[in-house]
Amino acid sequence: MTVTMKGSEVAAAMKERLQREVAELRAQGVAPKAAIVRVGARPDDLAYERGAMKRLESVGIACQVFEFPETIGQKEFEAGFKAVNDDPEIHGILLFRPLPRHLDEEAVKRMIDPLKDIDSMSAPNIAKIFSGDETGYAPCTAEAVVHVLDHYGIEVQGRRVTVIGRSMVVGKPLTMLLIKRNATVTVCHTRTKDLPATCRSAEILVAAAGKAKMVTGDFVSDGAVVIDVGINVDDDGKLCGDVDYDAVAAKASHITPVPGGVGAVTSSVLADHVVRAARYLQGNA
Amino acid sequence: MTVTMKGSEVAAAMKERLQREVAELRAQGVAPKAAIVRVGARPDDLAYERGAMKRLESVGIACQVFEFPETIGQKEFEAGFKAVNDDPEIHGILLFRPLPRHLDEEAVKRMIDPLKDIDSMSAPNIAKIFSGDETGYAPCTAEAVVHVLDHYGIEVQGRRVTVIGRSMVVGKPLTMLLIKRNATVTVCHTRTKDLPATCRSAEILVAAAGKAKMVTGDFVSDGAVVIDVGINVDDDGKLCGDVDYDAVAAKASHITPVPGGVGAVTSSVLADHVVRAARYLQGNA
Repeated sequence: MTVTMKGSEVAAAMKERLQREVAELRAQGVAPKAAIVRVGARPDDLAYERGAMKRLESVGIACQVFEFPETIGQKEFEAGFKAVNDDPEIHGILLFRPLPRHLDEEAVKRMIDPLKDIDSMSAPNIAKIFSGDETGYAPCTAEAVVHVLDHYGIEVQGRRVTVIGRSMVVGKPLTMLLIKRNATVTVCHTRTKDLPATCRSAEILVAAAGKAKMVTGDFVSDGAVVIDVGINVDDDGKLCGDVDYDAVAAKASHITPVPGGVGAVTSSVLADHVVRAARYLQGNA
Repeated sequence: MTVTMKGSEVAAAMKERLQREVAELRAQGVAPKAAIVRVGARPDDLAYERGAMKRLESVGIACQVFEFPETIGQKEFEAGFKAVNDDPEIHGILLFRPLPRHLDEEAVKRMIDPLKDIDSMSAPNIAKIFSGDETGYAPCTAEAVVHVLDHYGIEVQGRRVTVIGRSMVVGKPLTMLLIKRNATVTVCHTRTKDLPATCRSAEILVAAAGKAKMVTGDFVSDGAVVIDVGINVDDDGKLCGDVDYDAVAAKASHITPVPGGVGAVTSSVLADHVVRAARYLQGNA
């Protein structure tokens, strides 16, 4: 029987833990709070904002949105961002990117307090993920994969994990998280020769290539664990992952669906980062 | 016939190129210059310093040593370091680490201009290596491996490369350099199950484990390329690598010796970084 690893179950377990942790912090006089910084009002950003706020507030994290006009100048924006960054009551900052073209995003990345950088945009934070420093915040999607594996009791230590994709939001940081947990990790990508064979040798296969249904049955060994990070639209206009679900589910021991898999966990990871940030910034870590 | 890949040959070719590039910079009025910053006078540091200066000066790079007393305070050291960092005539800085215990190394890492950070100690530089930004300077030993492969005409694109070791000075940054060049990279370490079998599937095997002669013949497929990054002392007190040379050379198509392999290239990489730094800082890149 193939186990379908549901993001909603992972998120529910995380919610329970986070509610408890937030209550503990509040009992110590710390009220975890996130700032959402947005320039303009793109519909995509607004949709994500609603979802993230709902998730954060559901565990007791306060959220404040700082909206700046799309026409704001660099100096004004930096001043506004600095005020948020310096506010001792704010523990984590989510900045919607990309910024409008006339703004210099790099300058803002250099400004943000690495301990408030819950969405992993600053160099010190990225360097921490690379070096295995656990005070770093990995990109939420990469870390969501680890939470799914943990929740379903899948051991990674010593196991052969193959990651398809080498992006800075999933493939590379996930590789670092898995190496830190003592997995033997192979990184594949578009230039990999004989990709199906390389993937077949994996005990755990993570697809983060961004290509609809590219992982077919011949990529997977019997009993492998398959995690699908892709979010694509198929020829019929339906949401689908990087994995050809039915063909792969017939072979895998565990598999995540799309939608309803890894994607359902990312905003829980964001909430987890705010709680960790509140601890670090209060010296309670 | 197995090809012995000699570090001296790689260094000689790099020297010729670097001499030409330094001459071009000088013709434009730029005199590439490196600063060596040393606190105290550990014999190891002094030995490395002599070797590095000789190599840098041999290609026309000026070197200046800034020696600080072992008892210097944090404030005084930071002031001294800042003067070096701010000096527009200095393009690259090599700081001997670790600093004496009473000094805060992290503060200095935060100070250094990433474009002068030729020995890869600052977070912005580390983040660049992770993200594949080519203005980053990788740790010299990791990059030396790539120079050896290039010099001997070994294609990495699309090939299966296995790296044994996950340190921040070799394994991890080398993995990133190889992924950037489109290799399919597997990272192994002490917790990897059935390490010999995992290594046997590699077309290119890099040993950076720091364990004398651990890579035996059964780790290597016929015709594989083997790079030995280890520098160890064997039971007879002789310098040796991570690779059991004779047994592996009998199978490999190409192999680096120890001594005389990768280690002989590292200070050439340092020189290359100074030349690149001089270009970046003059806007000539």
